[in-house]
Amino acid sequence: MGIRVAVAGASGYAGGELLRLLAGHPEFDLVAATAHSQAGAHVSAVHPQLTGLDLTLSATDATGLADADLVFLALPHGQSAALAAQLPAGLKIVDLGADFRLEDAELWRRYYGGEHAGTWTYGLPELPGQRELIATADRVANTGCYAATVTLALAPLIAAGLADPSDVVVVASSGTSGAGRNAKVNLLGSEVMGDLSPYKVGAHQHVPEMKQATGATSLSMTPVLAPMPRGILATVTACFARNGDPRQVLSDAYANDAFVHVLPEGQWPHTAATLGSNSCHLQATVDVDSGRMIVVSALDNLGKGAAGQAVQCANLMSGLPETMGLSVFGVAP
Amino acid sequence: MGIRVAVAGASGYAGGELLRLLAGHPEFDLVAATAHSQAGAHVSAVHPQLTGLDLTLSATDATGLADADLVFLALPHGQSAALAAQLPAGLKIVDLGADFRLEDAELWRRYYGGEHAGTWTYGLPELPGQRELIATADRVANTGCYAATVTLALAPLIAAGLADPSDVVVVASSGTSGAGRNAKVNLLGSEVMGDLSPYKVGAHQHVPEMKQATGATSLSMTPVLAPMPRGILATVTACFARNGDPRQVLSDAYANDAFVHVLPEGQWPHTAATLGSNSCHLQATVDVDSGRMIVVSALDNLGKGAAGQAVQCANLMSGLPETMGLSVFGVAP
Amino acid sequence: MGIRVAVAGASGYAGGELLRLLAGHPEFDLVAATAHSQAGAHVSAVHPQLTGLDLTLSATDATGLADADLVFLALPHGQSAALAAQLPAGLKIVDLGADFRLEDAELWRRYYGGEHAGTWTYGLPELPGQRELIATADRVANTGCYAATVTLALAPLIAAGLADPSDVVVVASSGTSGAGRNAKVNLLGSEVMGDLSPYKVGAHQHVPEMKQATGATSLSMTPVLAPMPRGILATVTACFARNGDPRQVLSDAYANDAFVHVLPEGQWPHTAATLGSNSCHLQATVDVDSGRMIVVSALDNLGKGAAGQAVQCANLMSGLPETMGLSVFGVAP
Amino acid sequence: MGIRVAVAGASGYAGGELLRLLAGHPEFDLVAATAHSQAGAHVSAVHPQLTGLDLTLSATDATGLADADLVFLALPHGQSAALAAQLPAGLKIVDLGADFRLEDAELWRRYYGGEHAGTWTYGLPELPGQRELIATADRVANTGCYAATVTLALAPLIAAGLADPSDVVVVASSGTSGAGRNAKVNLLGSEVMGDLSPYKVGAHQHVPEMKQATGATSLSMTPVLAPMPRGILATVTACFARNGDPRQVLSDAYANDAFVHVLPEGQWPHTAATLGSNSCHLQATVDVDSGRMIVVSALDNLGKGAAGQAVQCANLMSGLPETMGLSVFGVAP
Repeated sequence: MGIRVAVAGASGYAGGELLRLLAGHPEFDLVAATAHSQAGAHVSAVHPQLTGLDLTLSATDATGLADADLVFLALPHGQSAALAAQLPAGLKIVDLGADFRLEDAELWRRYYGGEHAGTWTYGLPELPGQRELIATADRVANTGCYAATVTLALAPLIAAGLADPSDVVVVASSGTSGAGRNAKVNLLGSEVMGDLSPYKVGAHQHVPEMKQATGATSLSMTPVLAPMPRGILATVTACFARNGDPRQVLSDAYANDAFVHVLPEGQWPHTAATLGSNSCHLQATVDVDSGRMIVVSALDNLGKGAAGQAVQCANLMSGLPETMGLSVFGVAP
Repeated sequence: MGIRVAVAGASGYAGGELLRLLAGHPEFDLVAATAHSQAGAHVSAVHPQLTGLDLTLSATDATGLADADLVFLALPHGQSAALAAQLPAGLKIVDLGADFRLEDAELWRRYYGGEHAGTWTYGLPELPGQRELIATADRVANTGCYAATVTLALAPLIAAGLADPSDVVVVASSGTSGAGRNAKVNLLGSEVMGDLSPYKVGAHQHVPEMKQATGATSLSMTPVLAPMPRGILATVTACFARNGDPRQVLSDAYANDAFVHVLPEGQWPHTAATLGSNSCHLQATVDVDSGRMIVVSALDNLGKGAAGQAVQCANLMSGLPETMGLSVFGVAP
Repeated sequence: MGIRVAVAGASGYAGGELLRLLAGHPEFDLVAATAHSQAGAHVSAVHPQLTGLDLTLSATDATGLADADLVFLALPHGQSAALAAQLPAGLKIVDLGADFRLEDAELWRRYYGGEHAGTWTYGLPELPGQRELIATADRVANTGCYAATVTLALAPLIAAGLADPSDVVVVASSGTSGAGRNAKVNLLGSEVMGDLSPYKVGAHQHVPEMKQATGATSLSMTPVLAPMPRGILATVTACFARNGDPRQVLSDAYANDAFVHVLPEGQWPHTAATLGSNSCHLQATVDVDSGRMIVVSALDNLGKGAAGQAVQCANLMSGLPETMGLSVFGVAP
Repeated sequence: MGIRVAVAGASGYAGGELLRLLAGHPEFDLVAATAHSQAGAHVSAVHPQLTGLDLTLSATDATGLADADLVFLALPHGQSAALAAQLPAGLKIVDLGADFRLEDAELWRRYYGGEHAGTWTYGLPELPGQRELIATADRVANTGCYAATVTLALAPLIAAGLADPSDVVVVASSGTSGAGRNAKVNLLGSEVMGDLSPYKVGAHQHVPEMKQATGATSLSMTPVLAPMPRGILATVTACFARNGDPRQVLSDAYANDAFVHVLPEGQWPHTAATLGSNSCHLQATVDVDSGRMIVVSALDNLGKGAAGQAVQCANLMSGLPETMGLSVFGVAP
């Protein structure tokens, strides 16, 4: 008999991807999946791609979840803390929301508003020492999708003293699933197809998380909505703090990681190659005109950026091989 | 030690999907993957989504393939027969091309030109009795992608005497990967995005295969290129030969099939729900104005329409569970 | 000084396209554009593509519209009749809704529900004699987008006695703007990109309009939502009632029409070629297997399928050249 | 009788857009359109969106073009100079290629290779004083599409002393038509749909043009291919050289320009709003974390980025109103 897991917030896009991954996981037994307005619906009515999975969504409450060994929270912004407070202390939790990511309560208040709920172990196993912390944690705060993309590209370069942390410029484009499954006019297919649209320019709430995770002291990050369902491509540029080869630093940093791949020289990451996988693709070079280093990072915002990352953390927390139930390979074209 | 398999024609889209499925298959060991102009390249240079797979493409010749227990042929039209003739008699082969699908040599000449190479066991396990034939065959001709979509929708209805085989009308739209990985101007992203484009109207070469597999005696089939990489949606209409419920006939026909799902009433198949899976989704109703039955069928042209179907056949031919290494669930959104 | 025109329902997609066409029209002066929840907003906040147009949306009421010489109604389903009843008798109106299209009150009740509001002159100038009726009408019911696509393909063939009206089968795919600017989950970009999705299968409310306009006595029509903002591609098949060349019949029928083009033999219509234009592209052939005629028709659902058609009618009603302010040429790629 | 114009290189995407604009232009009479491999073809076979335009493409040679008053060159890279040398001295030319844009022959050799052909008047009318130079020039070098997007965003800010020219970072994403109508596997719809793909990272050949046109002394520019046919979105960031409001500087700079629009505060440019138009949309803000200014610029790469810009220049060179035959409004959705 396997490890009993549950998903709270199963009707959204990250929730649906969690269900897909858990349905194919050899050791996790999905015992409950909850939703708000969709409670009572068969999962295939909410996620037709899961036709064939025998599961009915239940209402989101602590009682139904407490029966599991490990719970994934994939709730709308700000709802994780309240639900987590009602769950037993020994229950393992991976929160896909932002509630417990930041260490600095003041930054939380400034970017998110309201009271800071606390800080959980940060769920990015590829950061130095982090894998071990996750393996012994009961509560893990999964990375944000933009933060995962940028942090994997940048953290080793700052840690190695190669990138100057004081002038980092990031432009990152995301597929529309990153905006959630919310019925908004600006997210309609008619509006987003054929369109690139920047948003939250100059003040994105994920910047503090990126700075905390990378060590950057100044970071400009402009997010753009791109006409595709999935994928994030981040272009990260920084000045050199010393001489060195950014590609080599990244290759060394991820030499033993199954999911982070520094591509062969001359080959650049693109999002479609990571679709449906838990992989992040990286490449770096030096810009001939400005002398800046340019690092490009691509991943699936619902995979390594959300549900895949969460399963990777859950594997570690459960003493399972980190890669279990996750694919290195993307579905393309 | 597992069953040794090889892929000839690994640089195309169906070939890439085969490699992805085989890389995750518990019993098949991929021992060779061949290509023509890409021979010598690392697989990740040709299929970046397979970054992390340690494999170099070799040249397509019989010698390199003969070492396998089972070979998948994913070659351009008309090349399978020549290669198959050079392979040992005992070697199992699944051909994803059209060369060995038709029983009628005259129809082959009329629609494809040239000499007919012969007829292999038809690789659609869900046809009555076909699963058993495939399980004992050494040579299997995988279905075409359009043919699979249409046949799964129509064959049980004609077999049950419900659908009149003499006036079937089909319109089927396919994602662009169905047109292959060929550098043609009309397949450029700039041309296909935002566009629906019919082709081969009035004379599609897959019609004889559909008629043979379904029992239709007259079948009009119009294919349309749709602005998406994957997926086929077929709308199949026929007159009633007797009273009855087409949805019930389909439900009965596929009651024991893992990959063919008749959706709950009121829910219609759509292609995105099948992406990356080996599933086919079906629904049927009666048109209030014309009295025709309308059946809609959706699948992934590279999955159940090509590579997934081929692996399903290979499983059967190898005495493995039919579903091994294949996913029922799609990657969505 | 030009002809004073107004648009009621200017915040939707058809309304926005009307504003674009009217802003460039040499003789129509746009004096009012109304909206419901968006009343008071600057037009560029609602339609950023109209940045540079100095116009504020006003509330939709009869008083503000009565001042115009001609009013376009681009309202949600069922609202045209109520508003039209409040407008002066002498005011010219083009209604883009369905309220006044059907002649048969019983069919209206069955397909739309509620009381039938009446029948206005049908706004498809290319039907025989219709141009003259529109030119003298004060009230015109613009065609539906699917109906325009299908009627232009089929009406001349039935009128010429070539197509058997008793067994017409249509499958038509539309870009998402045809579903309106409504915040619905199933219309989100994340859901529609990469997806083909049929809807209202077996009972589409536009079938009576198509039968009335074409003379078909039995017509099966399956609509499919396609992953693109604009465009409709209809595949229309019918049996032959007598010998003849369907392409020649269509060429003869539209020989003098500026906006309906029968393409050169061998060239098939595709939607992208009509984007932003008021053109409809047609081609026809005979299916070698079934002997049915297949006619393919493509147009821009917001152009010849809605706003462009409405301006064409308004030109006629105003004694202007039919083509004024409309483009024959599409915006591609 | 109007001004006689010709297009050399009419079979590509910029060439097709030129033909569309010229077909609707009140004063330009299109007397010749030439192509290489497509010479002899009817224009509608090459550009189906121009069905209805009675024009046959001729071979590209100087004789056929010399008869015009003004010639547009929309040729593949490096072919403009050779053809221009054969054309009469008095003939007006607008070159859409890069051959004559750079002032610095050494930079030309470094980024493009080969000998520098010379420098023509730079075709960006919105630069201070440039409109007047264009109006009296016989030879104009149209801007590159990326350069137009970036220059309109940045030049006034450097000119006003607000932006520090020594550390400009740009990430710009383009629709696929920017890569031309070339049959390449990486540009296939199957590859680009659902994908964001960076290219020429670290060494783009348009950087010298951007620096020359904006006054930047260091500029990092990363181009990304986006899954849409048209449109460029550029995110331009720079440090402040002095205090000031970048949005105000831009508003002042373009107060009298018909085609460059600084959007209302809070509204950000997105590409779809500019499709088919000659407009560029701009917005600016200050990044709260880094203190950098962020300017976002959107335009249609085939419109203001190529063919529209070229017609605007030709209008000026011909003594016509600058806006003639060009639309301020985009075609959306």
